[in-house]
Amino acid sequence: MPVNLKPLAVDSIFSVKGISLGIAKANIKKPDRKDLLLVNIDEGSKVSGVFTQNAFCAAPVLLCKEHLKGASEIRALVINTGCANAGTGEEGILRARETCRAVGELLSIKSEQVLPFSTGVILENLPVDKIKSGLPEALKNLAPNHWLDAAEAIMTTDIVPKAASKKIKIQDKEISISGISKGSGMIHPNMATMLSFIATDASINQVLLDQMLKEVTAQSFNCITVDGDTSTNDSFILISTGQSGHTEINQEGKDYEVLKNAIQDIAIELAQAIVRDGEGATKFITVQVESGLDDTECRKVAFAVAHSPLIKTAFFASDPNLGRILAAIGYAGIEALDITKIQLFLGDILVAEKGGRAASYSEAQGQEVMKHSEISMRILLNRGKAKVTIWTCDFSYDYVKINADYRT
Amino acid sequence: MPVNLKPLAVDSIFSVKGISLGIAKANIKKPDRKDLLLVNIDEGSKVSGVFTQNAFCAAPVLLCKEHLKGASEIRALVINTGCANAGTGEEGILRARETCRAVGELLSIKSEQVLPFSTGVILENLPVDKIKSGLPEALKNLAPNHWLDAAEAIMTTDIVPKAASKKIKIQDKEISISGISKGSGMIHPNMATMLSFIATDASINQVLLDQMLKEVTAQSFNCITVDGDTSTNDSFILISTGQSGHTEINQEGKDYEVLKNAIQDIAIELAQAIVRDGEGATKFITVQVESGLDDTECRKVAFAVAHSPLIKTAFFASDPNLGRILAAIGYAGIEALDITKIQLFLGDILVAEKGGRAASYSEAQGQEVMKHSEISMRILLNRGKAKVTIWTCDFSYDYVKINADYRT
Repeated sequence: MPVNLKPLAVDSIFSVKGISLGIAKANIKKPDRKDLLLVNIDEGSKVSGVFTQNAFCAAPVLLCKEHLKGASEIRALVINTGCANAGTGEEGILRARETCRAVGELLSIKSEQVLPFSTGVILENLPVDKIKSGLPEALKNLAPNHWLDAAEAIMTTDIVPKAASKKIKIQDKEISISGISKGSGMIHPNMATMLSFIATDASINQVLLDQMLKEVTAQSFNCITVDGDTSTNDSFILISTGQSGHTEINQEGKDYEVLKNAIQDIAIELAQAIVRDGEGATKFITVQVESGLDDTECRKVAFAVAHSPLIKTAFFASDPNLGRILAAIGYAGIEALDITKIQLFLGDILVAEKGGRAASYSEAQGQEVMKHSEISMRILLNRGKAKVTIWTCDFSYDYVKINADYRT
Repeated sequence: MPVNLKPLAVDSIFSVKGISLGIAKANIKKPDRKDLLLVNIDEGSKVSGVFTQNAFCAAPVLLCKEHLKGASEIRALVINTGCANAGTGEEGILRARETCRAVGELLSIKSEQVLPFSTGVILENLPVDKIKSGLPEALKNLAPNHWLDAAEAIMTTDIVPKAASKKIKIQDKEISISGISKGSGMIHPNMATMLSFIATDASINQVLLDQMLKEVTAQSFNCITVDGDTSTNDSFILISTGQSGHTEINQEGKDYEVLKNAIQDIAIELAQAIVRDGEGATKFITVQVESGLDDTECRKVAFAVAHSPLIKTAFFASDPNLGRILAAIGYAGIEALDITKIQLFLGDILVAEKGGRAASYSEAQGQEVMKHSEISMRILLNRGKAKVTIWTCDFSYDYVKINADYRT
């Protein structure tokens, strides 16, 4: 079960002026489940996106990039679960284009104004006829308050829908920010996670929206890992509709910071929700690497620890077999690492220093921390000022079960 | 259970002139099991070693390097299981030195002539008193034909002892080569595997022995992975006693090649045995990456595939969810990779080409290959002439079970 994720109430996810969401059951992979989402974006909105760096990126990712570069305003998103349309070659592109064309016809917009997203099994052709059959139903139930249904419609092995929402004020105008995302395996985003969409009715120019997207991604979706597999379909889309009535944000400063911090909060909440609902997860683990020379080496150490199956299974077992953490730090590939300077804390407990076990450390202390479902560790390299925090989960029987049985 | 590893007969592992092995039950971690090995090496032998590149390398690894650099001839190895003496700081070095001193006294040699090795739990102090108490028993049963007992005495989570042996002729003299090794988790050697020792009575000078060790390592122990965790204790030692009566090999050429190929055969057999007995392994998987620009990029692709928990669990389930392989190739970090040129074969079956599923491929074909316990895949990058082969295993419930319960 997801680690400390509370069920969401429908009214906890605020509507965003200029955004409406429609859901359909299109029988893409399984009968009688919400598997198709149409997002309508009002004219005058701005859209920014980051995508996976996987060389085998999916056809819809290629098309998203093409459409975002084009001259036409983005007016709709179409998202299906059940098939990733990745590893599908030229045929995949054709089918993604056909999906966009169908959406364009329904909404009376150009197909270049549609961004397509897919998630599910790789190496299978997109059932574009099923998607086209489902679209009228999705069109019919377009509504501003369908965020939670939308979160459900993009799930794959996710156990719970993931959404987050917040209201802030800019220039005394009320601003809504709402977002949804899905995980929950093949998670080691290298640009953005599987699928995340955040929209706000704040007003901001395109250059700053793009900049904000990158800054937020670096602090949220690029800080999580479930299994170290970078997906072919990772996409994170940020939309501002500009319908809240304040003057457009055209420079960095207070308004930019307020909006960015709020969007970052939502993005971190969604990113953490992906980890909390990571395949088979029973624990939520925060890995903080401090006093490194730069962010790069801090990230190397943090992800070496977060990816180690040995460490992840020890956390699953609540076994403070913490030497495995030292081993992972040791093979992270950091130049001229002086291991005698490193300090390892589990929660508030000093576990290791001077190249070995801390004199004050007792197994009972480690045991006490390990039994909780939320665990944090701090690794101090004591050689610089950089600091990075990433989030991951443990590795359980259920991860194997879920992924061994994924397609059945 | 280990994948297709036949039980070894005692007489299948040949004695090597100049080497004798003694075993003891020293109660290091568990009562009544062989856990201490003493190897006596005759005067006039040559010894070469490669070790882990983990920055948190164990105290015995540091001491081995020191002793191998020294002026004194190496005359003995002492190996314990049950405690890795890693992450033990200054105290670890002291205890490893004390072990060498005790062996030196028993054999009437200097402590610098002893190489110490440890394997087991990290972050716990070496029980040097237990080792010292066990040494007289090991000394008493030193014998040239104790190779199989020796293989048993160095096991940790290994299910079966691993040994390999071969006879060849050089200059019409019969040469024996015998080796032992242990796995079976924290296996992604970056220089050599957990512990492997190969000895021969062939005669070769030190420079060529060192060169041979490196060449052999690159083709054997550096080509395997179980879980991607590079151990703190990896060591591979090659010994030539020179007692077989042929003229010393002092240059590259036919004799060098014959000996190297035979030692490499033994090293590959031992390396593969580690994978076959990988924690929880049910399948033995060969990943061959061909027509790459250089070895480095071929290795990147091969290990991205071999480390992916998603791919490993799909193999466990015999599920040809082969898109996961394309995803791993895509995130391996290869510059300017043209995915439309890549071909993926599972066994003899062409699965993917032109960026997607091969037209000739059917799921039934994939299923047929996946159900075997020995599976090979070939990934053709079609952009150069380099080729790399690595070996790994699948990822099962039992991997999680073994590592969650490791210390209990």
